[in-house]
Amino acid sequence: MLALHFDGKKVALAERPEPTPREGEVLVHVQRAGICNTDLEIAKGYMGFTGVLGHELLGEADGQRVCAEINFACGTCPTCRAGGRNHCPTRSVLGILGHDGALAERVAVPRDALHAVPRAVSDDAAAFAEPLAAALHVLDDLPARRGERIAVIGDGKLGLLCALALATTPASVTLVGHHPEHFAVAKGARALHEKELPRERAFDAVVEATGSPSGLELALSIVRPRGTVILKSTYAGKPGVALAPVVIDEVRVIGSRCGSIPVALRALGERLVDPTPLLDSVLPLAKGLEAFERAAKPGVLKVALAVRGALS
Amino acid sequence: MLALHFDGKKVALAERPEPTPREGEVLVHVQRAGICNTDLEIAKGYMGFTGVLGHELLGEADGQRVCAEINFACGTCPTCRAGGRNHCPTRSVLGILGHDGALAERVAVPRDALHAVPRAVSDDAAAFAEPLAAALHVLDDLPARRGERIAVIGDGKLGLLCALALATTPASVTLVGHHPEHFAVAKGARALHEKELPRERAFDAVVEATGSPSGLELALSIVRPRGTVILKSTYAGKPGVALAPVVIDEVRVIGSRCGSIPVALRALGERLVDPTPLLDSVLPLAKGLEAFERAAKPGVLKVALAVRGALS
Repeated sequence: MLALHFDGKKVALAERPEPTPREGEVLVHVQRAGICNTDLEIAKGYMGFTGVLGHELLGEADGQRVCAEINFACGTCPTCRAGGRNHCPTRSVLGILGHDGALAERVAVPRDALHAVPRAVSDDAAAFAEPLAAALHVLDDLPARRGERIAVIGDGKLGLLCALALATTPASVTLVGHHPEHFAVAKGARALHEKELPRERAFDAVVEATGSPSGLELALSIVRPRGTVILKSTYAGKPGVALAPVVIDEVRVIGSRCGSIPVALRALGERLVDPTPLLDSVLPLAKGLEAFERAAKPGVLKVALAVRGALS
Repeated sequence: MLALHFDGKKVALAERPEPTPREGEVLVHVQRAGICNTDLEIAKGYMGFTGVLGHELLGEADGQRVCAEINFACGTCPTCRAGGRNHCPTRSVLGILGHDGALAERVAVPRDALHAVPRAVSDDAAAFAEPLAAALHVLDDLPARRGERIAVIGDGKLGLLCALALATTPASVTLVGHHPEHFAVAKGARALHEKELPRERAFDAVVEATGSPSGLELALSIVRPRGTVILKSTYAGKPGVALAPVVIDEVRVIGSRCGSIPVALRALGERLVDPTPLLDSVLPLAKGLEAFERAAKPGVLKVALAVRGALS
């Protein structure tokens, strides 16, 4: 089958062996697969992953449209039994760690990681389930009440989705970015260019989604004392970051990674969030390499691959 | 009067003008004053402070033994009215920011920052009220229940006090350090040399009190996923720290600075904590420079100055 594959050196559109589902796994026919910044980072060596890329999946299995959790846990270790399946120490992660990904014609996925997509959710929207789940997960650590002032730093894909997720709450949401042409996507949030941002401790919470360590320093400079910074960005290596404000201002810095696919599908089904304005382009799998290169361009939002015709 | 003074270049025992209490302030006759690592950092340029050093104070005012809060707040701004007096944006801080400190014969302190010392508390113990308050403040962010596994990294003054503070709870406390000769001070905690520490995610919470960014990396490597790291160390500059585990393991990093002096005095009065085994030496103010140099030696715990005879 055709797949977008990383061999540890370069990304290529390649003919790969058919996936053979192991016990508990089913074969999913991919319909849509999004390209994420994590895929771009993996292509630079992040996680040391080699294999088929991609973890944002809409597919078809047993006649149903499905999206997939991406963390495949053992289900039996103490971490799993305590409800921390996304942190299972022996987990594999779709297209990221020890498990071939979804930028392909077919992919094998554990049956219990699959979730049926409600009929009301379009293919375009459903392909956002995984990154939207990660964005909605911010709400698990931020009780976003009325009157709370929350900033999201970064107007790339993740920042925009976080702003949309927070805009479903009664909190006051400000998006801070560098791309005014993206601001209209963040419906329900006030948007500011970073240059216009007053340098005062005006926010109860700040979501850092820039991907750059300078974003964390900016977050620490605008969050109020004893406020919360939700860290969504994974920085490579050992970046130099001024951390004294964490202690002096007694800030809570909370790391936030993956969310719940059913929560995201419900938000899409109830039209609480519309991520489709983030869609830059949908290309066929045969143009996978071109899509990957386009996704890497600064300012380009979501690029997805259409792998088969939609069922619905 | 005689005082240990920092002029921006060097620390000297100097004759300084008498403090003149402003409105709301009273003159405190210093009895004991401890030397803290923050004083040593200030002498290297931290905070850009110049003036009389010292913020760990036992003194006498209006015939009473008193200890002092060190953050002097305006009391009227939104931060103060929301209960965040320690974070008042226009605060001064005793011997640290805009207010002469306590390593002197006398010091002017706002009356509402003073707290009477219970008779049951010795002078030696009372001089620990401020650093002990900072250590007990860890409990405000760590509900240390039975069965919780908590590590303290760092067996210097702050780490030992944090271990003693946590040992007042039913949690299981492990002190991790480099100075086995200090381990006996941390009564109620298991103590381990860092070399003996299993590199596994075995702790629900970790208190970082080493003063070194490598301590934060160690903390992130032994805390469980979704666990808590309490950051007590203030790192100068922009240290290179691997922060990806914060996100991947969804750790909560909570900065923790000053605590409540009444809480510390109550713990001392009820003999819940005995910090006096940390006392390395008590020298007269006339030997202040010698004391300061001794406090800077690796492995030396608390050095205090005795400024007047004890009242009790």
